[in-house]
Amino acid sequence: MRQSQLFGKTIKESPKDEVAKNAIFLERGGFVQKTFAGVYEYLPLGLRVIKKIEAIIREEMNATGAQELLLPALHPLENYIQTGRSEIDVLFHTELSNGKKIVLGQSHEEIVTPLAKKFVDSYRDLPLAVYQIQTKFRNELRAKSGILRGREFLMKDCYSFHADVEDFERFYDIQKKAYRSIFERAGIGDQTFLTNASGGTFSKYSHEFQTITDAGEDTIYICSNCRMAVNEEIKNETPACPECGESNFRKEKSIEVGNIFPLKTKFSDAFEFTFQDKEGNKQPVIMGCYGIGLGRLMGTVVEVHSDAKGIIWPESVAPFRVHLIELSSMRAEIKKGAEKLYHALLAKGIEVLYDDREDKSAGEKFADGDLIGIPWRCVISEKTIDKNVIEVKARNAPKAEFVSEVELFEML
Amino acid sequence: MRQSQLFGKTIKESPKDEVAKNAIFLERGGFVQKTFAGVYEYLPLGLRVIKKIEAIIREEMNATGAQELLLPALHPLENYIQTGRSEIDVLFHTELSNGKKIVLGQSHEEIVTPLAKKFVDSYRDLPLAVYQIQTKFRNELRAKSGILRGREFLMKDCYSFHADVEDFERFYDIQKKAYRSIFERAGIGDQTFLTNASGGTFSKYSHEFQTITDAGEDTIYICSNCRMAVNEEIKNETPACPECGESNFRKEKSIEVGNIFPLKTKFSDAFEFTFQDKEGNKQPVIMGCYGIGLGRLMGTVVEVHSDAKGIIWPESVAPFRVHLIELSSMRAEIKKGAEKLYHALLAKGIEVLYDDREDKSAGEKFADGDLIGIPWRCVISEKTIDKNVIEVKARNAPKAEFVSEVELFEML
Repeated sequence: MRQSQLFGKTIKESPKDEVAKNAIFLERGGFVQKTFAGVYEYLPLGLRVIKKIEAIIREEMNATGAQELLLPALHPLENYIQTGRSEIDVLFHTELSNGKKIVLGQSHEEIVTPLAKKFVDSYRDLPLAVYQIQTKFRNELRAKSGILRGREFLMKDCYSFHADVEDFERFYDIQKKAYRSIFERAGIGDQTFLTNASGGTFSKYSHEFQTITDAGEDTIYICSNCRMAVNEEIKNETPACPECGESNFRKEKSIEVGNIFPLKTKFSDAFEFTFQDKEGNKQPVIMGCYGIGLGRLMGTVVEVHSDAKGIIWPESVAPFRVHLIELSSMRAEIKKGAEKLYHALLAKGIEVLYDDREDKSAGEKFADGDLIGIPWRCVISEKTIDKNVIEVKARNAPKAEFVSEVELFEML
Repeated sequence: MRQSQLFGKTIKESPKDEVAKNAIFLERGGFVQKTFAGVYEYLPLGLRVIKKIEAIIREEMNATGAQELLLPALHPLENYIQTGRSEIDVLFHTELSNGKKIVLGQSHEEIVTPLAKKFVDSYRDLPLAVYQIQTKFRNELRAKSGILRGREFLMKDCYSFHADVEDFERFYDIQKKAYRSIFERAGIGDQTFLTNASGGTFSKYSHEFQTITDAGEDTIYICSNCRMAVNEEIKNETPACPECGESNFRKEKSIEVGNIFPLKTKFSDAFEFTFQDKEGNKQPVIMGCYGIGLGRLMGTVVEVHSDAKGIIWPESVAPFRVHLIELSSMRAEIKKGAEKLYHALLAKGIEVLYDDREDKSAGEKFADGDLIGIPWRCVISEKTIDKNVIEVKARNAPKAEFVSEVELFEML
């Protein structure tokens, strides 16, 4: 992609109404724009990151055996009355022209449970796991953490249905491993901790995946012996590590990047969702749910992987792999050399953003490069063209090196 | 995919509350389920079709030079007051907990225009075209055409911005060709006609793509000389074909599967969106918009390509390419042979739905196959196993033939 054509421009000044680092860098870099607090537009650069994250999540979910579907955002209020959740404060309310009361989906238990009930009759139909990557709506009182806590956001939500608790636990463990793998592949594995948390109204405990960063709204206690953590909300009732029994913890601020939740029979009871077991008896279906916010994951990566100059994308979720910069103000050969390398990179199938802008200085181009944070920067300039080399620098490396085209392709 | 594992089952009886053929076949086949009138859940089979359609549209849009982004569904009501559209009856209304008035996006001119204004200052920033594949919400008074007219539906909407009318017309023509290509690739090219229609409040005319089918809510008049059509709504003021001057027309019922629209300066005026031309003068930006509903396109394909038994998917948008059916009630060798062919198909990268269900009769499996409508049916049975052949039948072929595995792979 030629940067001169890219929709979305970098912005020098921090947006006045943003305090979160993720939002500041993402808006300044041309990844997102704010419609209003908690609601963002994803520009082409930002959507590329979202699609990378989406692909990782989809692969890992498919590997657990979950099947992808797509549920609607308009939900009948009556389904929430049935589960006792019609009064929760994050629900957006509206209505059809015929007066039917509607809420916007803040999660999908109220839709997926009656749907699964239509197709599950017998133990032979279980276990079942379905997921979607779809937009959620939550009427948050305040939305000030950039794309970490949105009023509208893309979420992967998975729901599983089981004949008994043992089978639920088997699948819950598979999801736990898939989550671990997702966060590792997104580049925040080292900073992310499986955390025991409150189970809310559904069960005693749930599990969160918490990523350490100063921008976090949560506080966790990480066991000094194993990697298990405990959320502050249940720290008092959990004096020892639930994994290894250790009682020394390190306190950290963190962001919840994912959660997995035993729902037990809370929703199957509400919708009278039962199955016939092998003996022909009716049994309630055991459910679990498993969520990851895609924008929140993207924002967390920015909070973790950035410096004073901008973002440092891990390769796996970077909008492009290479940022090719030409500094051709002096000579036409430089432009030619950059065009040649651009086409060589494209021919190798390497995703490249080519800064071919003619009205920007070298300083502006480098500053934009650091802000946007593409992993590899390649420069063609007065310094490189006659020697037939490329100045290459990893975004997080202290300095550049000069290599031949052959060497560059070996590095990439 | 093993059919025994697939979420969603075929249903023998037509759903009582559906009248549209598309909804009847898609619900009975396990592609979609209805949440309430005009709102559908896409099950794994249905989502596979949507993703095929999405991929075709994305490729064709990218080829026009339009850049993909993702805009929100929550829109500030004030933007609609600014364009004079706050009173249109299809708007869903809600509000933030702080009282801010919100509507759900029924289209995105009110969001994309102020967004483009942030980045377009000079003639150098034009032309610009952006698109998204995103969910729209329309509070339809009645929703009774299955997935053809939804209250919530996936739509590809593209918006273009130009310095002058000539440049707009150049791009409008590129979009027209992309639309033609999309409908051809989706298998409804022969039945789809470019149609002159009313321009509504924006301009005198717009262009629709209308697909002939009895389920259509529209009526068009197709020129007996060229392929141009005229929508009934402007037939009185258009006695002769606008393309070739012919005055003989054939009247047909049809579905609008896409439309392209000159917006002129309607929205750029409302948001005071101007650019500086080469001479340094402020000029209003000329806009166009280009829409295709993904569910509507899917439903139209079903209306056009089906018979009394079910759907006949064109290969390009079929959920799977091959439906492998094993009739093994009698012998274990048959099951083995089917498993072997299943893995051979997967190894070749051919998408296959494998009907390995043990509790279904041959008659039920064939009926489900015809209902689901996968292009190629392969049967392994008592009739084939000893001769080491496969019974293969195209969904729309009158009868099956017996071929070797080598011959089958040549056919596919």
